[in-house]
Amino acid sequence: MTASTGQANIGVVGLAVMGSNLARNLASREGNTVAVYNRTQARTDELMAEHADLGFLAATTIDEFVASLSTPRTAIIMVQAGRGTDAVIEQLAERFEPGDIIVDGGNANFQDTIRREAELREKGLNFVGAGISGGEEGALNGPSIMPGGSDEAWQTLGPVLRSIAAVAEGEPCVTHVGHDGAGHFVKMVHNGIEYADMQLIAEAYDLLRRVGGASTEDLVGVFRAWNDGDLESYLIEITAEVLAQRDAETGEPLVDVIADQAGSKGTGVWTVQNAVGLGVPVSGIGEAVFARAVSSKTTLREAVRRTVVSRPDPVEVPDSFADDVRAALYASKVVAYAQGFNLIVAGAEQYGWTIDLGAIAKIWRGGCIIRAQFLNRIVEAYQNNPDLQSLLEDPYFAKAITDGEQAWRRIVSTAAASGVPAPGFSSALAYYDSLASDRLPAALIQGQRDFFGAHTYQRVDKPGVFHTLWSGDRTEIATEPSTH
Amino acid sequence: MTASTGQANIGVVGLAVMGSNLARNLASREGNTVAVYNRTQARTDELMAEHADLGFLAATTIDEFVASLSTPRTAIIMVQAGRGTDAVIEQLAERFEPGDIIVDGGNANFQDTIRREAELREKGLNFVGAGISGGEEGALNGPSIMPGGSDEAWQTLGPVLRSIAAVAEGEPCVTHVGHDGAGHFVKMVHNGIEYADMQLIAEAYDLLRRVGGASTEDLVGVFRAWNDGDLESYLIEITAEVLAQRDAETGEPLVDVIADQAGSKGTGVWTVQNAVGLGVPVSGIGEAVFARAVSSKTTLREAVRRTVVSRPDPVEVPDSFADDVRAALYASKVVAYAQGFNLIVAGAEQYGWTIDLGAIAKIWRGGCIIRAQFLNRIVEAYQNNPDLQSLLEDPYFAKAITDGEQAWRRIVSTAAASGVPAPGFSSALAYYDSLASDRLPAALIQGQRDFFGAHTYQRVDKPGVFHTLWSGDRTEIATEPSTH
Repeated sequence: MTASTGQANIGVVGLAVMGSNLARNLASREGNTVAVYNRTQARTDELMAEHADLGFLAATTIDEFVASLSTPRTAIIMVQAGRGTDAVIEQLAERFEPGDIIVDGGNANFQDTIRREAELREKGLNFVGAGISGGEEGALNGPSIMPGGSDEAWQTLGPVLRSIAAVAEGEPCVTHVGHDGAGHFVKMVHNGIEYADMQLIAEAYDLLRRVGGASTEDLVGVFRAWNDGDLESYLIEITAEVLAQRDAETGEPLVDVIADQAGSKGTGVWTVQNAVGLGVPVSGIGEAVFARAVSSKTTLREAVRRTVVSRPDPVEVPDSFADDVRAALYASKVVAYAQGFNLIVAGAEQYGWTIDLGAIAKIWRGGCIIRAQFLNRIVEAYQNNPDLQSLLEDPYFAKAITDGEQAWRRIVSTAAASGVPAPGFSSALAYYDSLASDRLPAALIQGQRDFFGAHTYQRVDKPGVFHTLWSGDRTEIATEPSTH
Repeated sequence: MTASTGQANIGVVGLAVMGSNLARNLASREGNTVAVYNRTQARTDELMAEHADLGFLAATTIDEFVASLSTPRTAIIMVQAGRGTDAVIEQLAERFEPGDIIVDGGNANFQDTIRREAELREKGLNFVGAGISGGEEGALNGPSIMPGGSDEAWQTLGPVLRSIAAVAEGEPCVTHVGHDGAGHFVKMVHNGIEYADMQLIAEAYDLLRRVGGASTEDLVGVFRAWNDGDLESYLIEITAEVLAQRDAETGEPLVDVIADQAGSKGTGVWTVQNAVGLGVPVSGIGEAVFARAVSSKTTLREAVRRTVVSRPDPVEVPDSFADDVRAALYASKVVAYAQGFNLIVAGAEQYGWTIDLGAIAKIWRGGCIIRAQFLNRIVEAYQNNPDLQSLLEDPYFAKAITDGEQAWRRIVSTAAASGVPAPGFSSALAYYDSLASDRLPAALIQGQRDFFGAHTYQRVDKPGVFHTLWSGDRTEIATEPSTH
């Protein structure tokens, strides 16, 4: 196979499922000629054999790959995050010229992206970390794309990415998120929100099943019905699909045959680590990450179940139970998204990015895992007020939450009474109640901290920083903030 | 001031409050001669002037300080964590000889401690990261000390640290936690548990006040009474002290005058970051860190309160309300400690430490902020079974929790109904209910993950890894675990 030289406007390195699907997506769009390269050539051959019609320029070496690209050369790397990415970047960077563009389309840690962008910028190369969401399906038919990197790179890359992105409400699901690592940061938050959303759906399912006594068949109907209302979303849709699936071997619903230990790939962990570091409460994502961790600890679970017999009271289920669960799910979901958007704001402040929150909500409306009708409301909220402190401050969401508030409270109470864990629902409600409280018991915590560590406190009635001489005569002194 | 040469068996660098109190503690014990040094000499002079009787050898330069130490030279650094620590370490390392010992008694990140220990070991020096808890009071009269580092260093250091540590049940509150960063890791977890414990107390206070209608005066009595039972602890004791304090200016309880924004110094954040990285659910600590973060976001809180008017139902308070709160607090506290000890186990596995959990519980019984009667129960639990998967598996704690279970459920339900946030109580209950559940909805999450990302799942009825061809004919195939 000999490649033509300098004919491809874009190339893809790494042809596992995500990479080859993205290459096929690119090649199927008017105006794109796509160079492809994979370290193991069998993969390249396979792609060429199955999709000869797409006009790929297949390279057998990295030199051939680079030679097949027109300038500014643009290559999208679709290999496993970490060392593999660094190796491919190095190969390309050695051969690329100033102005060329290297795109990392994997799930990189945004900190790595910031580092790589800075290193390559010194060589005059453009490095773009681009979050791509939508799985294999999305990569092939239209993902949601979150590119960072320079404005210069975006000039070239924008039209190409717009051509392959999902379309929602007539708009392609891609925007220039911000400089250097902004795209991967926002993709990380997207995944964190995805964790929270999935956990909330799982809790709804569990309550309907264990407290409401619904059969899996009943629940298919419930989730299909929910998918016609304001919960309409990909995740609700596929929940119904998963619940509807029968296991061929046992005849049971597949969900009852699947082991109840949830795996994870790490972006949820990164989200929580960064959020706590930035001081942003993302309890919904945190509880979702913790819940998956608990589920996977089989030895721990068995050990505790051997010893502890929990005895919740029998709980009566009102006719409105499913509606209550629906309201709790919606309200908790609003909280999870509000927390996620606050994390984006904090990240932008910390790393010096300018991020348009409305544009982020827009590009999540199609292609990605958390795509949902609901995101249109978020788009509107930021259109009405780009400086919202929280989605909860938006009149639409404030009303939506207060409308469902009583049901939400009933569901969290019921979960506690019945012994069905609902950490997502209850942490979301606690967050909401914390924000809605005039006065939090944090004042007591400040008093304790001042008592044992002289950490000082502020007063409600005058500015300044104060300390009570707890081990002395217990008078109060004005002081400087503690530094130890 | 001229220092004698080689007479001091121990030295302290850094004479801010913690350092000078620790130096005084050391100097007041039989057999210790203490060299002291501070970069700004005024501090050294002050200490000498106020405590001339303690026989300090005061050095005016770092050379003089080093010369005043007998071999193996042993110096405890008590300066601010971070660069300050590195600078002092460098100064000492240049002057110390193989076999000498440098102790970092600050709140260092254990990762830094691991790095520093490895660097100094190459030079033949012993570096010991030692967590010291107990605040200024503890440093002076007997802290709880958590040293890591080498066995060789512990030979010399053990007797000195035992001489100054707090004593609980006749035993000094210090043990050789494990190698290199083990001491600072365990101190980090100690602080994380402290966050959780304080948050739970704050929630108890808030519920008694806002739902129970108790006055601050009433609450002084409640916490004093609790301090006579199985909640007996330093934090409960000082809660009563803080609540009893009147503000001289307004005549109001001080707690009502303190601004309700809780500060933090970072060890809670580290605990959560490391726990999620190690896959250990520490929801109690997580919610405590998030709750402090929420409290400190005044602009956000105001914005939401302007828009949202939460309308919880009026909640009736039974006579047993305070007892119920007490039971919920105790059960939630057991969960927080169980999670914290699991984090120590995971850290030990990850970093190759051998840590005796019973010994850790023992050294926390005195001197430190979380000292409590309760820790004797933990000591016993690990004496009975050193391989506990969880404190919840221990018969005593299992019984304690199931005895309080109904009350705990009532309190979490009441909090949800009444609009008083109780994220600590409710996440602890959800954790307990997750562990006690035969079957978690994580199976649905695995189904969703397989649907959108081909992440595969395991089955309950046979080994192997499986994937359903969701976008194909929906048959199931046996496969390898997904790597993308």
